[in-house]
Amino acid sequence: MHEHIVKSYDAERARLLEETLRMGEMAAAQLEAALDVVQRRDDDAAARIIAGDAAIDALEREVSHDVMKLALRGPMARDLREILAAIRVAADIERIGDYAANVAKRSMALNTAPPLPHVAGLQHVGRLAVQQVRDVLAAYRDGDVEVATRVRAADAEIDAAYTGLFRELLTYMMEDARSITPCTHLLFMAKNIERIGDHATNIAENIWFTVHGDDALPEREKADGSNTAT
Amino acid sequence: MHEHIVKSYDAERARLLEETLRMGEMAAAQLEAALDVVQRRDDDAAARIIAGDAAIDALEREVSHDVMKLALRGPMARDLREILAAIRVAADIERIGDYAANVAKRSMALNTAPPLPHVAGLQHVGRLAVQQVRDVLAAYRDGDVEVATRVRAADAEIDAAYTGLFRELLTYMMEDARSITPCTHLLFMAKNIERIGDHATNIAENIWFTVHGDDALPEREKADGSNTAT
Repeated sequence: MHEHIVKSYDAERARLLEETLRMGEMAAAQLEAALDVVQRRDDDAAARIIAGDAAIDALEREVSHDVMKLALRGPMARDLREILAAIRVAADIERIGDYAANVAKRSMALNTAPPLPHVAGLQHVGRLAVQQVRDVLAAYRDGDVEVATRVRAADAEIDAAYTGLFRELLTYMMEDARSITPCTHLLFMAKNIERIGDHATNIAENIWFTVHGDDALPEREKADGSNTAT
Repeated sequence: MHEHIVKSYDAERARLLEETLRMGEMAAAQLEAALDVVQRRDDDAAARIIAGDAAIDALEREVSHDVMKLALRGPMARDLREILAAIRVAADIERIGDYAANVAKRSMALNTAPPLPHVAGLQHVGRLAVQQVRDVLAAYRDGDVEVATRVRAADAEIDAAYTGLFRELLTYMMEDARSITPCTHLLFMAKNIERIGDHATNIAENIWFTVHGDDALPEREKADGSNTAT
């Protein structure tokens, strides 16, 4: 009987991980699709991405259910940290999905004006973010603290790319007043992507928390200078 | 013995609520202070707000600890929903604190240029957000679903004020290229405040979840038109 319960806990735990990873891959795919839609100026595809966000939200509710089922079994120490981390990771993925959907939504506003050459920088920072999300999900799947720590450190690269793009967009806006509204959308799209990087970092920190509990994380570099740009 | 355990569960539960409410009041006070600092152009006070965010983060870690302690007791049904909601509410409050600190940080960038008349609109939407945060914390303290539902509905007011401010700032940017950088900071500050409203809404939805579980929430109006402004 005891063995039966243990086995079943592991099965539910595996299901929770599988759902969370599926949710994460959906969010990464939504972000990739949103970047593509910005490039192709495709309103129909943008609308599909926006509608697709509901599936990620539904998976988050499933994750919450499964966490509650596991919590009822009275898990201890690392098992308990694992399910707490699962709730937080699911919430981070849900936000990544929201930001991807917002990129798609703003692309529709961009499509009402002539194409801007300034979308290239967005693709660069966007691709970095997609890679961060995929890398951190792999680390989460494997419970790999080393990979998680590398992903966390690599967030500085996104921050630096975002800050560069932010400054670039400001100069375009100053040169041509007609570009102000579309460039503002691009600023917010870039900010969404920078925030996606932060959520990948949060996931990395939850991998650390699962393994090491509340031990302090290593120091890391921050490179987002856009908050203080003058 | 049984009574002793029950009593102690309630004591820990009360402690969790008290900590979460304290955390929430700190975040509301940080937002209020940040709005004040924007008005007074006070870099020293802004730096204190930025430093003060660490205390909110520390409280979130305490809340997580207390949730873990309560989870070890194997709570059922509503008790379990309550502690799940507590983790999420603490995460929302933590984000509110981050956004308030970011408003303070950006005020320092604004202070390097001459004062702008456009900060008045920010004060208006900011005060609405402070009120929403305080109202939803009161509903959380009282477990009052009706008040929570009203707070959730009132988010449309913040969205509408934010959208108005967003459009106003765009026109200033078009009229005067020198205002582009400071107005961009104001756009992001306004967005931070709009996001604080969303987190107050999340807290309201967690009050609903605690009481009603996964029953569907009532429909509500959304009034953020800034994503599609052209």
